[in-house]
Amino acid sequence: MTTSDHPRRSPPDLRPDYAAAAAHAQRTAVLASVEALLGWDEQTMLPQGGGAYRADQVAAVASLVHSARTDPAQRDRLERLAASMEGGKGDWSDEQRATVVRLLRDLHKQLRLPPRLVEEIARACIDGQQAWVDARRHSDWKGFAPKLARLVELKREQATAQSPDLDPYDALLDDYEPGARSSDVSALFDRLRPGIVALLRACRGSTCPPRDDLLKQHVPRSAQERFVRMVAERIGFDFTRGRLDSSEHPFCSTAGPHDCRLTTRWDESYLPTALFGVLHEAGHGLYEQGLRPDAFGLPRGEAASLGVHESQSRLWENLVGRSLPFWEWCLPLARKAFPAAFSDASPEAVQRSMLVVGPSLIRVEADEVTYNLHIMLRFDLERALIRGDLAVADLPTAWDDRFEQDFGIRPGTAAEGVLQDIHWSGGLIGYFPTYTLGNVYSAQMMAAVETDLPELSTHIATGQFAPLLHWLRERVHAQGRLLDPGPLVTNATGRPVSERWLMESLWNRYGPAHGVGTSPPA
Amino acid sequence: MTTSDHPRRSPPDLRPDYAAAAAHAQRTAVLASVEALLGWDEQTMLPQGGGAYRADQVAAVASLVHSARTDPAQRDRLERLAASMEGGKGDWSDEQRATVVRLLRDLHKQLRLPPRLVEEIARACIDGQQAWVDARRHSDWKGFAPKLARLVELKREQATAQSPDLDPYDALLDDYEPGARSSDVSALFDRLRPGIVALLRACRGSTCPPRDDLLKQHVPRSAQERFVRMVAERIGFDFTRGRLDSSEHPFCSTAGPHDCRLTTRWDESYLPTALFGVLHEAGHGLYEQGLRPDAFGLPRGEAASLGVHESQSRLWENLVGRSLPFWEWCLPLARKAFPAAFSDASPEAVQRSMLVVGPSLIRVEADEVTYNLHIMLRFDLERALIRGDLAVADLPTAWDDRFEQDFGIRPGTAAEGVLQDIHWSGGLIGYFPTYTLGNVYSAQMMAAVETDLPELSTHIATGQFAPLLHWLRERVHAQGRLLDPGPLVTNATGRPVSERWLMESLWNRYGPAHGVGTSPPA
Repeated sequence: MTTSDHPRRSPPDLRPDYAAAAAHAQRTAVLASVEALLGWDEQTMLPQGGGAYRADQVAAVASLVHSARTDPAQRDRLERLAASMEGGKGDWSDEQRATVVRLLRDLHKQLRLPPRLVEEIARACIDGQQAWVDARRHSDWKGFAPKLARLVELKREQATAQSPDLDPYDALLDDYEPGARSSDVSALFDRLRPGIVALLRACRGSTCPPRDDLLKQHVPRSAQERFVRMVAERIGFDFTRGRLDSSEHPFCSTAGPHDCRLTTRWDESYLPTALFGVLHEAGHGLYEQGLRPDAFGLPRGEAASLGVHESQSRLWENLVGRSLPFWEWCLPLARKAFPAAFSDASPEAVQRSMLVVGPSLIRVEADEVTYNLHIMLRFDLERALIRGDLAVADLPTAWDDRFEQDFGIRPGTAAEGVLQDIHWSGGLIGYFPTYTLGNVYSAQMMAAVETDLPELSTHIATGQFAPLLHWLRERVHAQGRLLDPGPLVTNATGRPVSERWLMESLWNRYGPAHGVGTSPPA
Repeated sequence: MTTSDHPRRSPPDLRPDYAAAAAHAQRTAVLASVEALLGWDEQTMLPQGGGAYRADQVAAVASLVHSARTDPAQRDRLERLAASMEGGKGDWSDEQRATVVRLLRDLHKQLRLPPRLVEEIARACIDGQQAWVDARRHSDWKGFAPKLARLVELKREQATAQSPDLDPYDALLDDYEPGARSSDVSALFDRLRPGIVALLRACRGSTCPPRDDLLKQHVPRSAQERFVRMVAERIGFDFTRGRLDSSEHPFCSTAGPHDCRLTTRWDESYLPTALFGVLHEAGHGLYEQGLRPDAFGLPRGEAASLGVHESQSRLWENLVGRSLPFWEWCLPLARKAFPAAFSDASPEAVQRSMLVVGPSLIRVEADEVTYNLHIMLRFDLERALIRGDLAVADLPTAWDDRFEQDFGIRPGTAAEGVLQDIHWSGGLIGYFPTYTLGNVYSAQMMAAVETDLPELSTHIATGQFAPLLHWLRERVHAQGRLLDPGPLVTNATGRPVSERWLMESLWNRYGPAHGVGTSPPA
């Protein structure tokens, strides 16, 4: 004890503040998960006439979520905590420090958004998605354009409000891929592009390219439903903590720490539509189910970014689902599920038939190689929209021109072109580049897994997916979002993020299948 | 203009207050409908592991709904409005007066409930329902008893808090059947009981009773799904504003003015399980779809009571669905839907096979005649529970003893006895008597319809349900809850509420089918 006139006070105990801040974040997540459920229900269950009222419901809950996320008491707590941590001060763990930094960063972003804007965006997104469903069905660009114009305007307003220091497009991108900047993404895409273009050119010049005729078999919907559910279960998706339903566009939505919902769509003459839809969404679902349930709503228990999320879906969809070992395991099961189909095919033939490459109009049906060109197109167009370099009215022509330039074909209708994706209609701008970032991360992770698990092919060929899933759980899922995606991927794989592994992975699989070698001509 | 020193002020214009009060009620309904959707999803979609978190979600939204329903600004507005209307004062329409009276009555009830109690009840109901699902499956009374004991305690606390002037059971009953008092209900039941007991005795003495063997036919689930959906659609249920799903216990839930959701359950060896489930729930759904969508959340656009709601479901289930004209229309369609079943049956035989009467353990499978005895049993037991005359621990024995006395058989397991109904597990105490009130109202309405629409039988036999639905829409649905159920039924039918029509309806249909005449022996 000091008897000085000006005693140095011991710092106040902020542990109750930390507990209260964490509890607040988790209570907010309860409401946010209700909003997520409203969205899931809208896409899967809502009767046709229910749309307008659903918009009111979402807007009401979104506004409550926004209030919770901008609660001044929470801001004060977090600011006190951040001050007590400055420069490494205080007896705080790394996790506690990262938690406070991330919660406070999120809160400041939200605080800069006026509640009016939040509610308008929520409403415009619902309106936009509903208009999009009809517009795509009837290839009616004119019916959709005003909704998109309004959304672009609102998203630009959001970007400027929430991150005044950033380029508006970067502000939106940062919401999906924390720390990513469009100049870096653009540079990465520029390094990736020539190798992909070279591979595409080489594949198109192949004299004996793979063909997917043997996949075009009649597969009854009910048998497909049982089969893809079995596959999802075998790779590790836990149906006591999740579901699988149908929707216009496949997605994965989380309505609680033990409530992860996948959707897919069905084509009775082409099994890969549902199967790869489910492998992809189950990849997302495995990530969600691998997050720490007790930390639901806290950075420790949340996904790192959309890019990292996409790395998980792509890893299961492409790097597992299109591999030979997978079909060594899966084909006998498919033959049992669909006795009238696939009876004469070998695993090698089926797997090779999944490596068809060629220009196609629809992104979600594109092959692994051209997929990234679809993304680069959208990335450039949406940047131009947000920057004001491109008017919404000019978007269809800009889309078709660029498409023709990249792919050598021109969409015949808006539904096959600019109207094909749900994203923009739901206000998801700055989201597309995360798909290719996900491809980049997934290839880099798979390269690391193959080093760490030399028996991986044997495991997969015998339906043992647990070792792979365990690796992902430990290195990726259990990490939450305490790190930005770049450092997270670097830690998980032991190497800085690079497009190299994706390039190698694509050439190593698609080159030999097309008889064109495993690397671009020198 | 007066120049007096004390000018008589003209009354303030309260029209903006009225508009604000109505808007507030409709905004509150948006949140309440989200709570309803959470409940629907829990019963139909929620993965097994999602239960605990769903309880958190429901509790959070219920607490927000409660805050909105007890908003002091709304209370002040409504009290100003009520004062301006006192004794017929002011330039207000009847609808405006009734709206203010009802909104204020609801608000005062809610205001007397502490938020803590509201949240505890919401949570205990979710816990209770989840425990009940397991308990019923395993006939495990002990696992469920503590949940029920807690619920009874909380409901008693609720009753005393919200209506201190009423007997606690009447306070709960009033929530479901506004204005009803258990002494009146008890007297009505006492008048009804002897005629039912006499009919049951007469039917059991029949030498040639109807048999339902011909209904026990294999009917594949997928064909049933198509069939019952078609029936619901034909009687007028609008699937662009609703859905049909499966659940443990059939129900009808409204998640918005254009979003009414029915459920049923399926038995592949007994079509009536799903068919009457759907006719019943679609009866509720037709009522919900007949309410004024623009007045969703206002007394003008809300159902009058559970009894009136039940009158609609029973009317379609029993008075339409078990009638000969209905089967003249429906049987050819059933033959087409299920080619392997019903091929030799006549409409008369099928309809008569639906008039089997006899003691049975399960309420939801009971015939129309004994059904009311099931209700009287529950009414007496739940009154005793709330009054404290019966302990939860003694409930199974009390149930079984009373059951044996009324029906002459004793349940073998708790699942066949005290655990069979979902209601108490979800805090629905005071709810059961509304089923028999619904039967009473439905018979009285059908008697009035038959007078007003002499061609009704012909309409039904040719699948024309619109005239009947139109009568119900005008006289009942479009009335909302501006009147208490008694006056509403009296207005709709031109006669005071009486058990007479139900008694006559049962004797007129079941008596001849059993060859025992159409009235009790003198």
